[in-house]
Amino acid sequence: MSFKKILYGTAYYYEYLPYDRLDEDIKMMLAAKINVVRIGESTWSTYEPEDGKFDFSKLDKVLDAMHKAGINVIVGTPTYAIPSWLARKYPEVMVQVSGHRKAYGARQIFDISNPIFLKYADRIIRKMISHVANHPAVIGYQVDNETKHYGTSSSNVQQGFVQFMKHRFNGDLDALNQEFGLDYWSNRINAWEDFPSMDGTINGSLQAEFEQYRRDLVNQYLKWQVELVNEYKLSNQFVTHNFDFEWRGYSYGIQPDVDHFKASEPLDYAGVDIYHPSRKHLTGAEISFAGDEMRTLKNDNYLVLETQAQAFKQQVPYPGQLRQLAFSHIASGANMVEYWHWHSIHNSAETYWKGILSHDFRPNPVYNEVSQTGAELDRLSPHLVNLKSTAEVAFLVSNQSLTAMKNFPFSDKHNYNDVFRSLYDEFYKLNIHTDISDEHHINLSKYKLVVVPLLYSISDQFLEKLNEYVKNGGHVIYTFKSGFTDEHVKVRTVPQPGIISEACGIHYELFVDPDGCELVPEDKTISKESDLGLKDWMELLIPDTAQIIAKYDDPNWKDYAAITKNKFGQGSTIYIGCYPSQGVLRQLIKNYVDELGIQRTEETFPIIIKQAKNELGKQITFYFNYSSQKLTIQDIKAGTELIKDRQVSGQINIDPWGVLVVEGQ
Amino acid sequence: MSFKKILYGTAYYYEYLPYDRLDEDIKMMLAAKINVVRIGESTWSTYEPEDGKFDFSKLDKVLDAMHKAGINVIVGTPTYAIPSWLARKYPEVMVQVSGHRKAYGARQIFDISNPIFLKYADRIIRKMISHVANHPAVIGYQVDNETKHYGTSSSNVQQGFVQFMKHRFNGDLDALNQEFGLDYWSNRINAWEDFPSMDGTINGSLQAEFEQYRRDLVNQYLKWQVELVNEYKLSNQFVTHNFDFEWRGYSYGIQPDVDHFKASEPLDYAGVDIYHPSRKHLTGAEISFAGDEMRTLKNDNYLVLETQAQAFKQQVPYPGQLRQLAFSHIASGANMVEYWHWHSIHNSAETYWKGILSHDFRPNPVYNEVSQTGAELDRLSPHLVNLKSTAEVAFLVSNQSLTAMKNFPFSDKHNYNDVFRSLYDEFYKLNIHTDISDEHHINLSKYKLVVVPLLYSISDQFLEKLNEYVKNGGHVIYTFKSGFTDEHVKVRTVPQPGIISEACGIHYELFVDPDGCELVPEDKTISKESDLGLKDWMELLIPDTAQIIAKYDDPNWKDYAAITKNKFGQGSTIYIGCYPSQGVLRQLIKNYVDELGIQRTEETFPIIIKQAKNELGKQITFYFNYSSQKLTIQDIKAGTELIKDRQVSGQINIDPWGVLVVEGQ
Amino acid sequence: MSFKKILYGTAYYYEYLPYDRLDEDIKMMLAAKINVVRIGESTWSTYEPEDGKFDFSKLDKVLDAMHKAGINVIVGTPTYAIPSWLARKYPEVMVQVSGHRKAYGARQIFDISNPIFLKYADRIIRKMISHVANHPAVIGYQVDNETKHYGTSSSNVQQGFVQFMKHRFNGDLDALNQEFGLDYWSNRINAWEDFPSMDGTINGSLQAEFEQYRRDLVNQYLKWQVELVNEYKLSNQFVTHNFDFEWRGYSYGIQPDVDHFKASEPLDYAGVDIYHPSRKHLTGAEISFAGDEMRTLKNDNYLVLETQAQAFKQQVPYPGQLRQLAFSHIASGANMVEYWHWHSIHNSAETYWKGILSHDFRPNPVYNEVSQTGAELDRLSPHLVNLKSTAEVAFLVSNQSLTAMKNFPFSDKHNYNDVFRSLYDEFYKLNIHTDISDEHHINLSKYKLVVVPLLYSISDQFLEKLNEYVKNGGHVIYTFKSGFTDEHVKVRTVPQPGIISEACGIHYELFVDPDGCELVPEDKTISKESDLGLKDWMELLIPDTAQIIAKYDDPNWKDYAAITKNKFGQGSTIYIGCYPSQGVLRQLIKNYVDELGIQRTEETFPIIIKQAKNELGKQITFYFNYSSQKLTIQDIKAGTELIKDRQVSGQINIDPWGVLVVEGQ
Repeated sequence: MSFKKILYGTAYYYEYLPYDRLDEDIKMMLAAKINVVRIGESTWSTYEPEDGKFDFSKLDKVLDAMHKAGINVIVGTPTYAIPSWLARKYPEVMVQVSGHRKAYGARQIFDISNPIFLKYADRIIRKMISHVANHPAVIGYQVDNETKHYGTSSSNVQQGFVQFMKHRFNGDLDALNQEFGLDYWSNRINAWEDFPSMDGTINGSLQAEFEQYRRDLVNQYLKWQVELVNEYKLSNQFVTHNFDFEWRGYSYGIQPDVDHFKASEPLDYAGVDIYHPSRKHLTGAEISFAGDEMRTLKNDNYLVLETQAQAFKQQVPYPGQLRQLAFSHIASGANMVEYWHWHSIHNSAETYWKGILSHDFRPNPVYNEVSQTGAELDRLSPHLVNLKSTAEVAFLVSNQSLTAMKNFPFSDKHNYNDVFRSLYDEFYKLNIHTDISDEHHINLSKYKLVVVPLLYSISDQFLEKLNEYVKNGGHVIYTFKSGFTDEHVKVRTVPQPGIISEACGIHYELFVDPDGCELVPEDKTISKESDLGLKDWMELLIPDTAQIIAKYDDPNWKDYAAITKNKFGQGSTIYIGCYPSQGVLRQLIKNYVDELGIQRTEETFPIIIKQAKNELGKQITFYFNYSSQKLTIQDIKAGTELIKDRQVSGQINIDPWGVLVVEGQ
Repeated sequence: MSFKKILYGTAYYYEYLPYDRLDEDIKMMLAAKINVVRIGESTWSTYEPEDGKFDFSKLDKVLDAMHKAGINVIVGTPTYAIPSWLARKYPEVMVQVSGHRKAYGARQIFDISNPIFLKYADRIIRKMISHVANHPAVIGYQVDNETKHYGTSSSNVQQGFVQFMKHRFNGDLDALNQEFGLDYWSNRINAWEDFPSMDGTINGSLQAEFEQYRRDLVNQYLKWQVELVNEYKLSNQFVTHNFDFEWRGYSYGIQPDVDHFKASEPLDYAGVDIYHPSRKHLTGAEISFAGDEMRTLKNDNYLVLETQAQAFKQQVPYPGQLRQLAFSHIASGANMVEYWHWHSIHNSAETYWKGILSHDFRPNPVYNEVSQTGAELDRLSPHLVNLKSTAEVAFLVSNQSLTAMKNFPFSDKHNYNDVFRSLYDEFYKLNIHTDISDEHHINLSKYKLVVVPLLYSISDQFLEKLNEYVKNGGHVIYTFKSGFTDEHVKVRTVPQPGIISEACGIHYELFVDPDGCELVPEDKTISKESDLGLKDWMELLIPDTAQIIAKYDDPNWKDYAAITKNKFGQGSTIYIGCYPSQGVLRQLIKNYVDELGIQRTEETFPIIIKQAKNELGKQITFYFNYSSQKLTIQDIKAGTELIKDRQVSGQINIDPWGVLVVEGQ
Repeated sequence: MSFKKILYGTAYYYEYLPYDRLDEDIKMMLAAKINVVRIGESTWSTYEPEDGKFDFSKLDKVLDAMHKAGINVIVGTPTYAIPSWLARKYPEVMVQVSGHRKAYGARQIFDISNPIFLKYADRIIRKMISHVANHPAVIGYQVDNETKHYGTSSSNVQQGFVQFMKHRFNGDLDALNQEFGLDYWSNRINAWEDFPSMDGTINGSLQAEFEQYRRDLVNQYLKWQVELVNEYKLSNQFVTHNFDFEWRGYSYGIQPDVDHFKASEPLDYAGVDIYHPSRKHLTGAEISFAGDEMRTLKNDNYLVLETQAQAFKQQVPYPGQLRQLAFSHIASGANMVEYWHWHSIHNSAETYWKGILSHDFRPNPVYNEVSQTGAELDRLSPHLVNLKSTAEVAFLVSNQSLTAMKNFPFSDKHNYNDVFRSLYDEFYKLNIHTDISDEHHINLSKYKLVVVPLLYSISDQFLEKLNEYVKNGGHVIYTFKSGFTDEHVKVRTVPQPGIISEACGIHYELFVDPDGCELVPEDKTISKESDLGLKDWMELLIPDTAQIIAKYDDPNWKDYAAITKNKFGQGSTIYIGCYPSQGVLRQLIKNYVDELGIQRTEETFPIIIKQAKNELGKQITFYFNYSSQKLTIQDIKAGTELIKDRQVSGQINIDPWGVLVVEGQ
């Protein structure tokens, strides 16, 4: 499937309106060149007010009106928030976490594997999708929304997990006890019926396995919904899902509770919500990393199903930023930018998560900037739709490692995603194009360099594959703790960093807290003027064949290495045995990519440059100014700057929070 | 009813004594000129040791001894702490909060609407009050103590709330769903029996309604107790209740869980406990705001049923402060000052909340200062009892707004009461006399200026009344977020600040977090040397007819107004669209009150001046020095300084933590 | 019983090994001169895989192999972690805390008084101990591990407590109500069956009594286990237990939940685990205070059953420290130093609590230092085993006071142990030898000086004994809050500090928070250049016969004393009515011990000196350098420095983290 135009739109909740203003809303949407809305994903109780009584009149009304206006519609299955009558009739559908059943109210607090819930969800989905599938406004479907397992440890989940483990270990309890170290603290399981509730477990390996099992519940649940929708959808309609990321008030990093790589398999398109800091805190890094992952998921363009308009008080964009952000999504490979949401809501939990319109529904600076952006996208759509790009660098991420490290943290301040972002953000700021994949989906041979943060829990086989990749000419950057445990989070019994010691040319016996210790640069890679401080973790590396890039300044440990580089076969590795400053990482990366001949630009952040090929076969180069200062691009690609429709070359100024889009000859 | 003399006394717990020393205690009380004690409000289990077995012998003993000594007694109904046998027999009387029933032990953790509790409370109250009513020592009653709803969500409360909502909406679920926005997240209620438990609600409007319902449980409960007591009390006895305030280790601001204005209606006198910082942190502001509210409640003098003697280690007063504080209460309109409590307790939760006496029952510096104060009050009582005053300024407070903002906070650091106090304290420090009322009780026409902090949830009707008030010559200071939602906490769909836009001459579409943004003064009201920083919130105001007092310094938002002034009809308004520093508020208020010709003194804090009329028809002026320095009053009112019984005029010194009381000619 | 040699070893978990390497492990142990292992204390589910089915094959295998290698074995009863089948069959064995039953998983979360648990524990202990008792490798037993009451408030505990109270008060409820002040807040108990659950109590006296009752459950439980083991053990085998301390990530202070003094009575030896900060934070103070207490418990040498090898990332020792620490334990009176543990564990909760070996089982710097230390201890054992010493100073500690102050804290930052350590650490740093005892075990007449921190809850009798001790020539240092309440935590009604006022020559009526107040030195004891700041608490002392060492600088309270000294009979006291800086405490202590002629060295921390007599009748003096600098000892005892086997006298250098052991002539 490929898109005919850039979709630009918004989530629209007709059901939430304080008074009926559908026609006025559509008039304002058309004026803003909005051509798509997403509807329906959270209003089950409106469509099925009583058990078995259905009322799609509001849905129909919106579909008809949108169709009449020429606006496309994506219809969501309404299952991520359940009706009160369902929770009242069957209290057991509510999720049970650590023995405590959640009270009805919020969305996303039922058990996604509960058979009663699934029976009711099956019926509403079939009723709703069969009802709308033939409507000419409908271009696609979103199954559920931001699905996760919601921490469920309901008894059916516990039972399912025991069956899963029994199956995985062919019923061999000795093997299970051995692999998970269950003799420890008398946790040994000597009969399957003794398998204790996971609520109290202190076994981090078992907990990680349980997390994996629960992530798989999400996979199964989404696959089941996709298959349901597929029974009804027309061939020109697509199915997507709205993924999200580790949330720190915005999209921070890899999602712990969902395996995006597996979960996206049954989808036609990857879809995503991306929220980020704004105003002077805006860097674009979240749009870039999330986009890189989404684009890699299906090796295709993706859909931004939600991103911020006014949002919260700390996120209201400066003039220019909203427009810049829309182009940023497209520059990363998005074919759709959809705001959350059209009108600010007048009651309940998200009253202050503001949309394009304020509560008064009147034009305002944000709406006006949406309108400007809509007009530009509408005009430039043929140049911007279905952009394709290739990356020389891939990030190898692992939510198995991420969740394993929740039980075995390397820090009380930082987690997996901090390290991932520490590395990612420097590649981003150096304008190096990256993919983001996982161990089950990556095609190593496509990449010159693979960046591997904290690959804590991983099979022997994959580590050997990485060694092989390096031997054959590939390059890898590893951080500390990589290779430490196997896929069941059992620590390896070989010298650390385990199997990759071979390619890294180092091993270590001790690891310590820095507690004020700093780096000592051993070659020219890292400047002595850098911030040489260390956070959280340092491994006392003993080089076998590796060369030392930096050591430690503690007199007791001054002979150990901190960061090393090693040639192995045709390739090479960098091993970072500690958590250094951003400045040190930047120099490390910059030197290495230059040495490897990986493409980057002279310009660096706050000038961000993204390149891709369009359907016209032309090179599109986006230039973004992520700062409040007017800046100068020293040597712009010669070509047509599409927004102002002018020829450009050489030196050119770029406005604060500005964007230039150059189509090459 | 009016009082014959200033009552000066203490809570007295004969039942808590480690050994019987009633006679010695009374001897010490008489030496200190104590003329009233409050007894009985927390010893139900002593008076009814078994279900249906009553023993008032200790009560009788105290009443007889007090009467003999000529000390008046206020008797409390003993219901705010229940006996263990009641909780054992009927566990369901214990309050249930979020599905969790509290374990017996503390006071104030039963369900005040539980029918079994009420049945037992009815019996003990009737038995006890009928037993004491004719005793000549008894001058009045306190019903219960610091009553609140204790967060109850017991099932009878849930059922009661559903009935209440059904009644309020005449059974019209569509209207309910519409007004509360329940389609959101599938929360729509399609049958009354589906109404989910409030424990899990994510609907802030519904939650605010539930808070209001629970505040009304308090109203009903107190009214029921007052009516019970009224059946027995003699005509010369009064009924009061001990209200309290938002607690931050002391009485900080408006009480969220009780509607003082409604709850005080059935009482003869408003009663209150007031606790405050002490030593170098003592300002007197808590005594002033609490007194202003209490005096306004029934437009009459009030009773300070509890205030601190030694209290906690951080509150032990400097020499002089205790005496100063007693006069401060009277200066605000109190007819009684009663300490909590006589003797420090030797066991249990409040062992370190010390009374007048330490645990050794011997005279100590605090007791000695009580004695000095007691002698002065005894002597000056005819000049100080039943003081009357009128205010030109009223604060309009709203605990509906306060509780609504718990779900919709403007800040993660500050709440409603911070803003209330930010404004109140500047009026206090400028020695401007204020009343404090609410929307259902205020008589707007009495005031030149009404100060309206954060009136977040309020009916159209009242906002129109405020507009009318201004049109007819009144003046209002509004802060940000006023008028934002209706009485059900549904955001208004008109441009903000809604209905009051008319009187304020401004509107706004966007509001943002300051994040370092500062004010830019636009006229002479605010000095450029002030602390121009902003906290938490800024609305981007667009003046329609208003004049701009200050703008913002963010270049992106420099054209918006921050603080505006508007003439409307015969009156005017100030609208403060942000949360500025105390220095800015002070200038704003000072300029405005001077412009409006509102009475204030040249002296400002730490010299605090309060004025009133006494029963002799004379003007009484109190001068307080709230500092550790000796200060000079430049121009004291000519008259008799009552404490030292001397004529004063012109310049006069005032001791650290000193007080002067001048009776005019 | 006395030991033949210094035991040096490690906890060993054969059951946890990822592969069988018993022979390799023993080979490495022998190479390191390890001569003892502790096994078996946490693997019940391995030894009894099903209810009633026993399998000691792994235990046997280890015993046989150790015996063959000449390594001694201490066998633990395996009861501190229960099998999953037991929790599944009898959920009621899991501990219930505040009405919430813990989920199976962690160790130490069952109810130690549950009859079903005790029945099963009885059986496994009998089976296991009878199975191993005659094995020649076994030298002793450890009953359970770090036993505590785990916060149990299961219903049998509640019932037991009520019976206990009924018995203690001979059924006299009036006496109970009076002593615990239960009239307060209607908590009066008028029938034993009304006694409410302790879960909700707000009565700190009752809570302290409940804590004492639960500590007694620990005493009974350990005594029961010791008696069980005694039925089987041979006469040359010993029984010990592994006590631990208040945990702040390491062994910080007195254990709140166990009465070490009572609990150790049935044991042959006191045993202990000691963990402490390391690297630049290492002072040795934890080894010293824990050792002083353990040595005093049975007035004998003790066993260090656990101490750290690599431990956590922040604890990995600098080169030299591990060896220094082993000698430190012996210098305090330990006859055994056992590491926790041999090999780092590959799964579950303590994966990062590393042992001597890393996860790769290979020699590493820590193992190498163990080997060096093992060789030295092996060689010097005849000189170092069964060292005896006597102290002139005793600390009088009270976990009744400690737990009582949880309900009545003097600070929100510091607790009992902070004050204990504030005093202890200064004695330690001045190289003054101390014992640590409690009120039921101390022989006052043995000591010149008794140091009494925060003796908050204590009987009249003991206070009178302390007065008597002073009268007869003893000396006492008291801190603030001592003597304040009786043994039931009822505040005394006499002037404070109660009975000890007599010996201290002071009393006080008021106590306040310092809030910036500082000390004013009144004589030469405290230098005016010291840090004169105060923390948390100050009593306004009124000297009766005492001389003033320091006053307060607050002008309001400048006439009160802060620290006083008093001669009483033949002895004297110092009373510290506030919480001063370490510098002030150091001067106070130094002056007082010098005045009293108590032995200390000229050298002070970081040079630590410990002295004892060995079995050869010679004086052994240990010198430790607790710093990263090379230091000089000015005047070493003349004799043989045993480690390097050389004669020493006069001035001598000591390496960073070094140790010298001098045997006198």
